[in-house]
Amino acid sequence: MLSFYTARTIRWEDGKVILIDQTKLPNKLTYITCTKPKEVVEAIKRMQIRGAPAIGAAAAYTVALAAYHTKANNLPDLLKEIEEAGKMAKNARPTAANPAWAVERTLSAAKKATSVEEAVKLVVKEAETIAEEDIEACRKIGKYGETLLKDGDTVLTQCNAGALATVGYGTALGVIRAACEKGKCIKVIVPETRPALQGARLTAYELHNDGIDVMLIADTAVGFVMRKKLVDKVVVGADRITSDGHIFNKIGTYQLAVLASEHSIPFYAAAPTSSFDLKSKAEDVVIEERSPDEIVKIKGQRVAPKGVRVYNPVFDQTPPNLISAIITERGIIKPPYERTIKHTLTKP
Amino acid sequence: MLSFYTARTIRWEDGKVILIDQTKLPNKLTYITCTKPKEVVEAIKRMQIRGAPAIGAAAAYTVALAAYHTKANNLPDLLKEIEEAGKMAKNARPTAANPAWAVERTLSAAKKATSVEEAVKLVVKEAETIAEEDIEACRKIGKYGETLLKDGDTVLTQCNAGALATVGYGTALGVIRAACEKGKCIKVIVPETRPALQGARLTAYELHNDGIDVMLIADTAVGFVMRKKLVDKVVVGADRITSDGHIFNKIGTYQLAVLASEHSIPFYAAAPTSSFDLKSKAEDVVIEERSPDEIVKIKGQRVAPKGVRVYNPVFDQTPPNLISAIITERGIIKPPYERTIKHTLTKP
Repeated sequence: MLSFYTARTIRWEDGKVILIDQTKLPNKLTYITCTKPKEVVEAIKRMQIRGAPAIGAAAAYTVALAAYHTKANNLPDLLKEIEEAGKMAKNARPTAANPAWAVERTLSAAKKATSVEEAVKLVVKEAETIAEEDIEACRKIGKYGETLLKDGDTVLTQCNAGALATVGYGTALGVIRAACEKGKCIKVIVPETRPALQGARLTAYELHNDGIDVMLIADTAVGFVMRKKLVDKVVVGADRITSDGHIFNKIGTYQLAVLASEHSIPFYAAAPTSSFDLKSKAEDVVIEERSPDEIVKIKGQRVAPKGVRVYNPVFDQTPPNLISAIITERGIIKPPYERTIKHTLTKP
Repeated sequence: MLSFYTARTIRWEDGKVILIDQTKLPNKLTYITCTKPKEVVEAIKRMQIRGAPAIGAAAAYTVALAAYHTKANNLPDLLKEIEEAGKMAKNARPTAANPAWAVERTLSAAKKATSVEEAVKLVVKEAETIAEEDIEACRKIGKYGETLLKDGDTVLTQCNAGALATVGYGTALGVIRAACEKGKCIKVIVPETRPALQGARLTAYELHNDGIDVMLIADTAVGFVMRKKLVDKVVVGADRITSDGHIFNKIGTYQLAVLASEHSIPFYAAAPTSSFDLKSKAEDVVIEERSPDEIVKIKGQRVAPKGVRVYNPVFDQTPPNLISAIITERGIIKPPYERTIKHTLTKP
């Protein structure tokens, strides 16, 4: 049984990218091996790999694959080729900040080279560094974040901000893991998180595998468990955080934050600095809409009448006034976010 | 195609009870014929028929079946037999108020008889009256409730408080139907309503069949659509209403009410007076918990890891301060509920 304290969601191996196929979980643990950039991009689109930090690493590896297998014999051709790959990876899903950031880093690395060989080496190395740094960031997020949790706390999380959403260890679940590693007894409640059921399929699986006490509820039961005083803290991930502290995360996060506020429960978001976007305004961030099939069919079985209209936004926006603190690898950021986020991200 | 303006969910026919099997919807429209009380009770337990007013009528018909097919040759034996049947029906699901009320009415009818034959006649007649009155109540609820809706409104409802939740026409959906019959253009948004997906399976089906504009969303998207100002009013049903205005309804209703309040959206509950319980205190009402299988499996397919802990309460409690008004067949009840509910229900 995989331990998600140490498991790796995605890795590089001699010109191949190997990733866990998350659409098959929890029933089967299988891996996909990609040798072409397009294969990684397709895996992102199909949500075989998902989670902002994980698809950031996947985007970097997409560029690395393009570089590693290039037939270009001059730098401009190579750059053009890897820029194309980077663009595909960035556009695979629009809401998370990390893919654009990761692509940018790999392309910058290539631009420092004076030969094709050197560029390939630098790009692959940069992708590897991004992946390594992500695990390190998650561990630091855990280290900072666990100080917010008390022994005996029950934490409600949503979707999957775990090892599977990152290269390893997780952001929100990293905080929980770090608290457990410190010897604190933490219980977790997770709503199943329709439409893609990442709470049921992935978070319950990760935590159950690791022997962390996890209880699964329907998305409709969030208010109920809060009203029953079963929840001490809420900790979620974030796919994009703007400079004024708006958080873009899995659909349902916003209502979780409203409910937490209504019940005076602290609401924390945990994310690496690679999920921050200091340039965009909140109103300009694209909320991805996915296929109606995710709603009208579950595991291929029809659950709604044919022809019915469906609206399937898969992310939402939580305003800063509902967020108690943001946990990053650079420390815990507290309001007023318009000042503290910039301060934390730009300090040396 | 069935029109839910006129369709009947459950009916009596010469000693048989015929009901739509709602577990097969929306894929197949099939009927179940029951001749034994136990068959109706099993249909209630399996949610082949569900919705407080509908299972109220089903409970009355359970007693009617026991009476109709009795072999008792004296009144005390008959009464004992039908009391047993009534008890089974009342206990099939604990949260809705209507079954106990309906059973009480049929038993009271029997007690007026001076012979077994007369008792059978009176019980069957009373069950038929309960069913007829339910349709009538729904139409009146619609008549009163539609005055709260404006031409062009988008109404968010939850679960199914439609024709299928009653003997016909519906409570919350009755209000929407009545507004449509008045020529108002009403759009409906319905979350799928896990775990049993009555929003996706039943409400979307009813409204789509009737040509009423309905849009299906995930339960996680409720806050999102409210924040986007897509919702003008919320109208839901109620399985039990206590004298001080606490509403017990499908899990998810409470968080809907909190979110409606946060976005200054009026929140209405629509229910016949048979759903009121003036005796119980809110804290004494039993919240039904159903099988973990409803969460970990969807249509027989496993979506969560084996062995994971599940909490599956299927109703919740919404406090009076979150409820703008309660729509009944006796008129619209407004706060302060501790005075107005009693007043409305006891007036001649």
